[in-house]
Amino acid sequence: MILVIKNGTVITMNEKRKEKYEKLDIVITDDTITSVEENYQGPYDKIIDASNKIVLPGLINCHTHLGMSIFRATNDNLTLQDWLHKKIWPIESLMTDEDIYYTTLLSCLEMIKTGTTTSNDMYFGINGSLKAIKETKIRSVFSRFLIGNMDPSSLEKIEEFRNLVIENQGNDLLTFTVTPHSLYTCNQEYLEKCQEIASEFNLPIHIHYCENLSEVEEIKKNYHKLPAEVLQELGYFKQKLILAHGTFISEEEQELLSKFDVSIVTNPVSNLNLGCGIADLVSYQKNGINVCLGTDGQGSGNNLNMFYHMSLVDQLQKAKYQDPTVMQSYDVLKMATINGAKALNLDHKIGSIEEGKKADLVILDLNSTEIYPTIDLINQVVHNVESNNVDTTIINGQILMKNHQFSFEIDESELVKNIDRITSHLMSEKK
Amino acid sequence: MILVIKNGTVITMNEKRKEKYEKLDIVITDDTITSVEENYQGPYDKIIDASNKIVLPGLINCHTHLGMSIFRATNDNLTLQDWLHKKIWPIESLMTDEDIYYTTLLSCLEMIKTGTTTSNDMYFGINGSLKAIKETKIRSVFSRFLIGNMDPSSLEKIEEFRNLVIENQGNDLLTFTVTPHSLYTCNQEYLEKCQEIASEFNLPIHIHYCENLSEVEEIKKNYHKLPAEVLQELGYFKQKLILAHGTFISEEEQELLSKFDVSIVTNPVSNLNLGCGIADLVSYQKNGINVCLGTDGQGSGNNLNMFYHMSLVDQLQKAKYQDPTVMQSYDVLKMATINGAKALNLDHKIGSIEEGKKADLVILDLNSTEIYPTIDLINQVVHNVESNNVDTTIINGQILMKNHQFSFEIDESELVKNIDRITSHLMSEKK
Repeated sequence: MILVIKNGTVITMNEKRKEKYEKLDIVITDDTITSVEENYQGPYDKIIDASNKIVLPGLINCHTHLGMSIFRATNDNLTLQDWLHKKIWPIESLMTDEDIYYTTLLSCLEMIKTGTTTSNDMYFGINGSLKAIKETKIRSVFSRFLIGNMDPSSLEKIEEFRNLVIENQGNDLLTFTVTPHSLYTCNQEYLEKCQEIASEFNLPIHIHYCENLSEVEEIKKNYHKLPAEVLQELGYFKQKLILAHGTFISEEEQELLSKFDVSIVTNPVSNLNLGCGIADLVSYQKNGINVCLGTDGQGSGNNLNMFYHMSLVDQLQKAKYQDPTVMQSYDVLKMATINGAKALNLDHKIGSIEEGKKADLVILDLNSTEIYPTIDLINQVVHNVESNNVDTTIINGQILMKNHQFSFEIDESELVKNIDRITSHLMSEKK
Repeated sequence: MILVIKNGTVITMNEKRKEKYEKLDIVITDDTITSVEENYQGPYDKIIDASNKIVLPGLINCHTHLGMSIFRATNDNLTLQDWLHKKIWPIESLMTDEDIYYTTLLSCLEMIKTGTTTSNDMYFGINGSLKAIKETKIRSVFSRFLIGNMDPSSLEKIEEFRNLVIENQGNDLLTFTVTPHSLYTCNQEYLEKCQEIASEFNLPIHIHYCENLSEVEEIKKNYHKLPAEVLQELGYFKQKLILAHGTFISEEEQELLSKFDVSIVTNPVSNLNLGCGIADLVSYQKNGINVCLGTDGQGSGNNLNMFYHMSLVDQLQKAKYQDPTVMQSYDVLKMATINGAKALNLDHKIGSIEEGKKADLVILDLNSTEIYPTIDLINQVVHNVESNNVDTTIINGQILMKNHQFSFEIDESELVKNIDRITSHLMSEKK
């Protein structure tokens, strides 16, 4: 099956290519990009006309909790710790796998509609969420989040994760990370257990890290060490390591982190909403640390629309430094594509549009008068795209959405009914 | 003509009313809201069914330059001063009134599509822009921006403004401000001239003010006074005063400003993009200064979608204070509605949904799965609304857009052609 995307203005994010944002044809054979060239004249089974449209690599959301869609925009007026303890965790404790199937399904639709093709997910209720992920055929870096202190239930979680990995080998759309919740919600022995299983399966570790100042202080108090030194002591640098948030990382720790295969996932919206602050991404990048982008869950991140989250990244750095030259739109687009792929150990497969990579693509239609005209293409893509500009989403060569219509069977009104039922049930139970 | 908006969930922003976000009917007689009540049973000529939708007052954009749409998102990597001198002003000097008719028309459509019903505009080419504003029937606080040093051309601008005001009396949709560009681009005598004309017609003054630190330093150097003291010396506190930006205002100056009828228009996106910084709105409000919201022009503000700009306001304060409790979504919605009306001397007419006010309204449809569900209504409205959620826009009792369709004749493809023509002409001329 040969699919050709014709005549789009292509932003390849291919580092080997001098980007000219020219009209190119993208040839996809089954799941793989087999050619990126001008005016392709070879055979094809299907054509998508992308004239007057923009084609870019599918966006990669490097930190999220897909099951949290029902907590959308509920974070007003609460600190991270209060929000978790008083609002989120009491309700989460009531959620069933079936609930999480529906809440994750809603998130998967949100991602497809907003051009995200890969997510790095960390949640529980994995039977439910995995079902939703498989049904919608998004690319997923998946996990079962691990929290505890070696009590039986926390060890069960590790067993649950082990079985998950063993039972789901060989799925091209599914890879795994080990996800201890954080240095302050797990004890040392449990964190070490997490390292062991990461080592056993040679998987990256994905962990919440230094999200706000009080977390940093708590870790220092518990370990009498800097947080990055704790990571080292735990052996976490033996694995590929994905640090979610990293809002506060000292210069000294940045130097340490830069020596290993560590990526920082910035979650700017969540960090603002929860009053955490603005991470010093300019410094992280200067120190050679790979920076990528996440939305966090919708509770603190408002939504999973990576375009919305992208628009803030360079803006916040410009304000932090009171200097508009410290970061450009193109840097942000890298974070949301190729840098994310690197963080997730998937840069041989995704993150850019080039021969040999899997066909994860987004087609944008920017011809809406409310954002007309486009003079600086990259600036416009990073700052002015809304969900209704996302025309087509392709994952692994499969067209999941075209002209804003899903290509698979999904009854959105039925899903909404289920979400309403779950929401009203959970909210009333909590009272 | 009686129009009834039935069964919407109404956010009135009426300070005298305890907000319950209940289902209400809004009765509009000609241009005026004549009743806000449950289950209206009186006569009507026309009904809009707003079941499952949200009704709120039309948004008020307190600082913008409508003619600048063709500079959309062109600010990457430049300081305010470089951006103006190298990028914007050389092109603006080539723009004709006809060009500005089209660029303003594009901005007016953008505002109607995104639920803004009033703008506080400051630009040149006023024959063109006024034509666009009148054609689209938006409510406008209008001006001719004044810049100069008492040279003949700058005095001509004042005459042009005077004629504008005299020739356009009695238009219910149109009021005026006097708009000296800034304390650093006009000399003292010219600034005083501007005060005189404001006094003559009893108009508010609207001026760029302390947008970045280098501007503040320049004013201090020129006047050997704090910027707020310069305002006082110029007699600007005799008028209602609208300060655009106000990114840097010392505590001492805040106290001075709070004694007079002064409003600060924050433009968060523009301030981030140009590396100006984050205004201390929490402090301004604590000191009793009225704070409202602007988008600035699309060049530095990316777009005129007030929902996008609103979403940032509280988030930035939460980050600045590293405390999520310092500002809530409702505070932001006030800035974009009733506070804006106060700043513009229009709070007797607009800014809230209540009997006796003009019918400037927006109807939102939040039933799109990519932002489902709505638990915290105000947080959702402030943080997750995109242009495609704006269903209906009503100004002065006139339905300008319903179900996303304009109710007036407009050939958008023809407009796009004109914008393309103007853009390519200006960009090539500049070279």
